[in-house]
Amino acid sequence: MRKIALLMIPVVWLMQWVTCDHVTEAKSPSSAAISPATEECIGCHLAVSPGIVTEWEKSRHAQTNPREAQKKTGLENKLSSEKVPEKLLDYAVGCSECHTMNYDKHKDTFDHNGYDVHIVVTPSDCATCHTTEAKQYSQNMMSHAYGNLVHNSLYQDLVESVNGIQSFADMKVSTRPSDPETNADSCLFCHGTAVEVTGSVLRETDFGQMTFPVLAGWPNQGVGRLNPDGSQGSCAACHARHQFSLEVARKPYTCSECHKGPDVPAYKVYEVSKHGNIYSSLQKDWDFKSVPWTLGRDFTAPTCAACHASLLVDEEGAVIANRSHQMSDRLPWRIFGLIYAHPHPISADLTNIKNKAGLPLPTELTGEPVQEFLINAEEQQKRQKTMQAICLTCHGSSWVNGHWARLENTIKTTNEMTLTATRILMAAWDQGLAKGLGQNDSIFNEAIEKKWVEQWLFYANSTRFSSAMCGGDYGVFDNGRWFLSKNIRDMMDWLEIRTAVKR
Amino acid sequence: MRKIALLMIPVVWLMQWVTCDHVTEAKSPSSAAISPATEECIGCHLAVSPGIVTEWEKSRHAQTNPREAQKKTGLENKLSSEKVPEKLLDYAVGCSECHTMNYDKHKDTFDHNGYDVHIVVTPSDCATCHTTEAKQYSQNMMSHAYGNLVHNSLYQDLVESVNGIQSFADMKVSTRPSDPETNADSCLFCHGTAVEVTGSVLRETDFGQMTFPVLAGWPNQGVGRLNPDGSQGSCAACHARHQFSLEVARKPYTCSECHKGPDVPAYKVYEVSKHGNIYSSLQKDWDFKSVPWTLGRDFTAPTCAACHASLLVDEEGAVIANRSHQMSDRLPWRIFGLIYAHPHPISADLTNIKNKAGLPLPTELTGEPVQEFLINAEEQQKRQKTMQAICLTCHGSSWVNGHWARLENTIKTTNEMTLTATRILMAAWDQGLAKGLGQNDSIFNEAIEKKWVEQWLFYANSTRFSSAMCGGDYGVFDNGRWFLSKNIRDMMDWLEIRTAVKR
Amino acid sequence: MRKIALLMIPVVWLMQWVTCDHVTEAKSPSSAAISPATEECIGCHLAVSPGIVTEWEKSRHAQTNPREAQKKTGLENKLSSEKVPEKLLDYAVGCSECHTMNYDKHKDTFDHNGYDVHIVVTPSDCATCHTTEAKQYSQNMMSHAYGNLVHNSLYQDLVESVNGIQSFADMKVSTRPSDPETNADSCLFCHGTAVEVTGSVLRETDFGQMTFPVLAGWPNQGVGRLNPDGSQGSCAACHARHQFSLEVARKPYTCSECHKGPDVPAYKVYEVSKHGNIYSSLQKDWDFKSVPWTLGRDFTAPTCAACHASLLVDEEGAVIANRSHQMSDRLPWRIFGLIYAHPHPISADLTNIKNKAGLPLPTELTGEPVQEFLINAEEQQKRQKTMQAICLTCHGSSWVNGHWARLENTIKTTNEMTLTATRILMAAWDQGLAKGLGQNDSIFNEAIEKKWVEQWLFYANSTRFSSAMCGGDYGVFDNGRWFLSKNIRDMMDWLEIRTAVKR
Repeated sequence: MRKIALLMIPVVWLMQWVTCDHVTEAKSPSSAAISPATEECIGCHLAVSPGIVTEWEKSRHAQTNPREAQKKTGLENKLSSEKVPEKLLDYAVGCSECHTMNYDKHKDTFDHNGYDVHIVVTPSDCATCHTTEAKQYSQNMMSHAYGNLVHNSLYQDLVESVNGIQSFADMKVSTRPSDPETNADSCLFCHGTAVEVTGSVLRETDFGQMTFPVLAGWPNQGVGRLNPDGSQGSCAACHARHQFSLEVARKPYTCSECHKGPDVPAYKVYEVSKHGNIYSSLQKDWDFKSVPWTLGRDFTAPTCAACHASLLVDEEGAVIANRSHQMSDRLPWRIFGLIYAHPHPISADLTNIKNKAGLPLPTELTGEPVQEFLINAEEQQKRQKTMQAICLTCHGSSWVNGHWARLENTIKTTNEMTLTATRILMAAWDQGLAKGLGQNDSIFNEAIEKKWVEQWLFYANSTRFSSAMCGGDYGVFDNGRWFLSKNIRDMMDWLEIRTAVKR
Repeated sequence: MRKIALLMIPVVWLMQWVTCDHVTEAKSPSSAAISPATEECIGCHLAVSPGIVTEWEKSRHAQTNPREAQKKTGLENKLSSEKVPEKLLDYAVGCSECHTMNYDKHKDTFDHNGYDVHIVVTPSDCATCHTTEAKQYSQNMMSHAYGNLVHNSLYQDLVESVNGIQSFADMKVSTRPSDPETNADSCLFCHGTAVEVTGSVLRETDFGQMTFPVLAGWPNQGVGRLNPDGSQGSCAACHARHQFSLEVARKPYTCSECHKGPDVPAYKVYEVSKHGNIYSSLQKDWDFKSVPWTLGRDFTAPTCAACHASLLVDEEGAVIANRSHQMSDRLPWRIFGLIYAHPHPISADLTNIKNKAGLPLPTELTGEPVQEFLINAEEQQKRQKTMQAICLTCHGSSWVNGHWARLENTIKTTNEMTLTATRILMAAWDQGLAKGLGQNDSIFNEAIEKKWVEQWLFYANSTRFSSAMCGGDYGVFDNGRWFLSKNIRDMMDWLEIRTAVKR
Repeated sequence: MRKIALLMIPVVWLMQWVTCDHVTEAKSPSSAAISPATEECIGCHLAVSPGIVTEWEKSRHAQTNPREAQKKTGLENKLSSEKVPEKLLDYAVGCSECHTMNYDKHKDTFDHNGYDVHIVVTPSDCATCHTTEAKQYSQNMMSHAYGNLVHNSLYQDLVESVNGIQSFADMKVSTRPSDPETNADSCLFCHGTAVEVTGSVLRETDFGQMTFPVLAGWPNQGVGRLNPDGSQGSCAACHARHQFSLEVARKPYTCSECHKGPDVPAYKVYEVSKHGNIYSSLQKDWDFKSVPWTLGRDFTAPTCAACHASLLVDEEGAVIANRSHQMSDRLPWRIFGLIYAHPHPISADLTNIKNKAGLPLPTELTGEPVQEFLINAEEQQKRQKTMQAICLTCHGSSWVNGHWARLENTIKTTNEMTLTATRILMAAWDQGLAKGLGQNDSIFNEAIEKKWVEQWLFYANSTRFSSAMCGGDYGVFDNGRWFLSKNIRDMMDWLEIRTAVKR
């Protein structure tokens, strides 16, 4: 029945297309012409994958075209590329526009009904219209999240200790290396996979047999994804396909996809902060679509995007913060991701970092920062001022200074509490109660080592996020200082029993 | 003062009833006539329990009647019974209609101002109009949740180890059996209690002395509740009284009532998934009331209901998925609830299941499935296809196949990681460090056994839910693989210390 | 018929219905005159801190004045002070009105462009218009949250064990006393800091050099804050600046700022309760601004405020519950905050409480309540009835009685499970395996003691909240009974190993 219906599509969908008010978001019908190629895509895909098509119809991409978008200049501009290829200018940004873009650079390009189509749309494709954002994002540590994890031998050992498959025999546990599917489902879910073409496959479809490329590491929308065109990252990580709604990117749920676990509880902290409270209570009356985003008129409390990424202006149009897809330009400190909090790294690519002991870390194991790879105090000051300019729109200087002094104190004390745990672990290694660096053994695979990991990865991180974003109990009983202090006593307890047993 | 006011009720409420536009949901005033019996109910209860009455007034039940509902046919139909008793056809579905339905079958029926009223409305009562749904639900494992827990000797032992009251004396802990109130507040809160009439009581009311039945196990809205009419389940578990709003049932908060803890973190995973993000960000613009539910027009990302229960169509009206109150017909695997993930059981009533070792489990303690009680590979394929039909409306085949391959891999590896923990526990039993099956002791009551339980009940479950629904950190640091791997090392650590101490 | 009935409606009622602008807060422009002083504030601050000004413009404070507010009488009244100073009556409640109020009593008052401005607006300032609320709040335990924590020697020891900075040397851990910044960021974040003027500072501003006071303990909005005018508390804890929206205070996110951690998971429990489900699903259609708050018309399921604070009426205008800023007048039991649940304390100031053993606790260490400081059974009954009047608007007596019986049982059993943990700890002290009260040592600083703390602070509390507010898994696997029972076995396991090692 479905196949018979498909024969009628060219007529049926055209009728439907013309008559239905697909476009409800802006309450205005689509005014943008659709390219013949995209029309052909829709011809089949409205039946084959109706969800994608109808979602796209609600997008800004479906309702305007680059020529129209270019007319919005200054702070209202959303199309940063100075030159957009002529052939794209007068059509809606549709299926064909993105999925055939730079087809010759894409290893995942395949012949699909006469078109050179690729599956994975990448930051390089998006850069055709959004050059500035793509460039900024390439300086964002997130775009390097794959390599920064996979090419760091120490962190790769942590990954194996988590994702490796353990078995028990002869009273011993042994570990089989992790498999690609597990890694893709675990760390690389957020960090991004390496998407590679591994072959092709013939499939039965509603339109007969068709050949498709087979992709390893697919699906994935991780922030540092390695793409088949050689680019890094996924815009879809935050700009959810195919509506690409600014509203989605500006709401905190987007960030929560990766920033919610005990290792990086940013969303959880935000949720219970005063900012999060006001957002949750009143956001129904806010405007999440206007560009620039006007403080006071459009919203009255910040979301993640407001503080970390968005172009903000006041009601007089004065710029409070410039749009940033680098994000770290508003951040003096890196408060999670490594054993100790430290000044932000200079480069987004962290693979060259090495400490004095030769470990691929931006601090020593005892916490001293490896300054040559990190921004200096002056740059920290500058970034702090950029962020504080946002704070100051709603808070007085006393408030803002007090808040930041507290955060800096928290960075210092949580680093101290991590150092204490490190010293206990080192004592365990010294005493032969566990095997670590000196014994050429993994520092992540024993029970006491895992306690140590939780000290910084869970508890110090949570405490710092709570301090940075006013999370209350996330700095105390919800993975905060209660656990920071308890974990030290648990490690000591372990040390005492083990020492006693050994004696 | 209240009593004086009550004297004026017959006039006051009538005025109010007639004049107020209570009914806002459908923006049309109530057109359905109210039966004389229900009018009498409202006469007192608008003052005695105004919340129930006003909530009901906002319901579809108050705004239509069965005769009108029958006129909606085909996919729009919401009243599945072919025959509805004549006397019900022309009245709104009100207090009296439900609370006197099948009164002779209800042990909780009592004389209330001349009416045979019962307190607990059951699936058998709802089946008067909603036959198909009630029948499907009886094939849903949830409707058997009481017996599947209470009549499984092994699980009952787990319940006792959790809900029993422990005391300490002479350096030993002893356990008093759990009491009914604790069980009702604990496991049976979601699984459902056995609601039984234990007597009657005379109470002072605003209208003088009245007699009411005394119910054990009340209140409860658990999915597998045993009702005083002999039926199983509670429609109100998901269709919250007394508005019975389709919107509520289709939103994920309903499912979160039972599916949020570390044992079954479905809602937590959904919340931070891309689906959950889009839902949270854009649902304000969606339509949660239309039947059938049209993908793209009514909503652009699935809620729990969309994937597991709802009747979905595309904009052309083609059916994507049929309505299901069985739910398991879209599920090839059972990924939580037992020690190892396994193919779904054939019957929703699990009380006959026994493995080769004689334990009431669908797998051996070492993971091998007991195939005779479980659906075969062909049926698994069929159910997978049913679910994938929904995935494919928004995702290409490469995406969907990649996703499912990853889930199957996760099922395999989490089962392996559970087996490793099981083997460590067995070694502890063998070495006499703990007492288990071989010693005719509970397998849930010692510290090391509780670690083992968390391996499958918390960490393997969380990892699988994360894999199934794209939960990111719930498969890593938020009760995911970090804990799966750490727990094994903790169990080994315990084994080593205990062995050393014993020596 | 509708129109005829309308004629019969009492005139007052009709007027009210027609004139009430229930939902127009944001849509009507400010009609209130702004005082010259406030105009001067805005003159600079619209540029310097636009967020505050624009947020305030959306507030009721900006749109009306006390004279107008006084005209709303009876249940509609929101300005409880009988006399408001004449000079305030005809101006919007703006910057100057609050920030120069009682300037002579404020140690943080400073000369700011010729005005005596203070930074911290306090309950004493708000009391100018809201006398009743300020007075009720002074009887709320929250307003004493600073002293109740800081002046309790036992609790202060707990604070130090959490916030003190630990270091490791010579195989031993030592602890440095906590610093003020850490305390302000930790326990005092919610409890409130002591805000004190410690000096003054000259700052460069957009308007030249200016002098500002330097405040210790700032920023803070904790519920028991000690203010520079000698008052206690912060209205802004719940009534978020500067919109002071009733909608925010009535939504559960406000309470979640402090009541979300494992020590007091009220919001988490609410979120997954049936009440929370209905709220999350349907609140978009509710009215959170009308005063009084009408059950059924304005909302159909309770938020935190509905049960604990708000003035509730039914559609006839009959009062269901009076407004309460004391809150404990609806609570017979204190189910968190101390080692054992117990009847509510008589006084909100707990600093005089002492048990027979001389500890500053409302129960003995073995659970017996110290009755002289606690409300008696009669008062408990009265408070229970006050709360149940709210329950009964939507639930029958059988339901309500069953629910409360279950809660009382949970209070009893969780206290028993805490006692068991206490007895194990006492045995550890007796056996010399840990140092406690008898050894004049902290009872919070050793590993086994911290396990004991979690028994009551996390698991017993969570189980009770779940029981009180129908939280399902929060009473079982989400920090509930699973952990209550497991923790006892873990403590026993520790006791056994330690005893064996010592031997």
